[in-house]
Amino acid sequence: MEKRKLETCFSPALFVPGENLESIVVIIDILRASSAICTAFANGAVAIIPVADISEAKNYKARGYLVAAERDGYVLDFADFGNSPFNFTREKVEGKIIVYNTTNGTGAINLASSAYMTVVGSFLNIGALTQWLIKKDRNVLLFCAGWKNRFNIEDTVCAGAIAEILMASNLYFSVCDSTLAAIDLWSLASHDLPGYIEKAAQRTRLRDKKLDDCIEFCLTSDYTDRVPVMKSGILVDNI
Amino acid sequence: MEKRKLETCFSPALFVPGENLESIVVIIDILRASSAICTAFANGAVAIIPVADISEAKNYKARGYLVAAERDGYVLDFADFGNSPFNFTREKVEGKIIVYNTTNGTGAINLASSAYMTVVGSFLNIGALTQWLIKKDRNVLLFCAGWKNRFNIEDTVCAGAIAEILMASNLYFSVCDSTLAAIDLWSLASHDLPGYIEKAAQRTRLRDKKLDDCIEFCLTSDYTDRVPVMKSGILVDNI
Repeated sequence: MEKRKLETCFSPALFVPGENLESIVVIIDILRASSAICTAFANGAVAIIPVADISEAKNYKARGYLVAAERDGYVLDFADFGNSPFNFTREKVEGKIIVYNTTNGTGAINLASSAYMTVVGSFLNIGALTQWLIKKDRNVLLFCAGWKNRFNIEDTVCAGAIAEILMASNLYFSVCDSTLAAIDLWSLASHDLPGYIEKAAQRTRLRDKKLDDCIEFCLTSDYTDRVPVMKSGILVDNI
Repeated sequence: MEKRKLETCFSPALFVPGENLESIVVIIDILRASSAICTAFANGAVAIIPVADISEAKNYKARGYLVAAERDGYVLDFADFGNSPFNFTREKVEGKIIVYNTTNGTGAINLASSAYMTVVGSFLNIGALTQWLIKKDRNVLLFCAGWKNRFNIEDTVCAGAIAEILMASNLYFSVCDSTLAAIDLWSLASHDLPGYIEKAAQRTRLRDKKLDDCIEFCLTSDYTDRVPVMKSGILVDNI
């Protein structure tokens, strides 16, 4: 059987849209967008509409949607709650369509729109995600959303964890230095993931804003078996 | 004493020119441009003019300059020799001004032109380079030239080796995830650098073109104490 290609992209600034027409792109933004989105589906959300723009989020709110939006750690006055995974409880999200306002994650999702398919990955759904990818039998691009176009450690380490599982299946090959580096960084991080992430710049930013209560949760593997899939600009459950 | 900032950039696509006005930018392109340039100065070259364009290189040749230029592993017919460090022997380069045709390296050098100063780094001059940087007492950006804007392992590992020395001096701080990741990858590579670089995509590309004879040399530390410095678009010796 022909092996599938596995690649990793460390930042939206490194993404080349035309190159991934045949690939499944996995958006990774674990602190906090991709973890929050996985949690919402775990708790029964029907769909998530990612929007980059505050005024767009406001318009959705006026039309009756649940809206998650914050800036610099403060929940925006018109929003229902902020962007932490802990906000997406079953009581709040079950059966609901939610608008999720995020600059980073949405930018990555838009860039990936030319891909064969776009899905959302995090530690929270890593087992289900990798099984789902293997079944799909397609080339895969692990796309780290980064922060303001910069490389970040936490998304890279998650990409490395996903890549390690996919490579172990023996169904993929990789001639991509980013993938190999991500796997190596994961090998250093895996024994004490919260300890390793301590040095990440985003860890410090979240601590400074007192938004770091969810980090340990975001580093938990296999909290859910949901794989959020992008369909016509809206994230829905894979089932 | 106030500590200086140390940052790392993994690709020209990630470089933000306006951010480094006060920094010394170290261009790292070890397979093979930055290693070849260090070797040329070690062997007595007076200056190196990096040019991205073949027709520009041709013009220099017509005016009597020594020109190093190749495409896809073949020395261009008008050039004196190719881009391998092994071409820059004392017999050929001592006392000479050399034109070095390279797409990657030159792109990075041009991007860095707004920086306080631009220098060339490799394993070959790592000891002298780090001592020189410490004496300069400035913010430092380690700028990996990459390959076609992609992240690459070999430049990252070299950046990590340089960063480890600078951080050990206790004169620098880093809140840059790229620097921390580079140091970690260097910690994995340092025990067997040629073995580690085996998996790099550029290693394979050079092997396929039979241009890999110089790799072991390019991974040698402290072959020279020269630090090539950019002055008005021309690289000269730091002395």
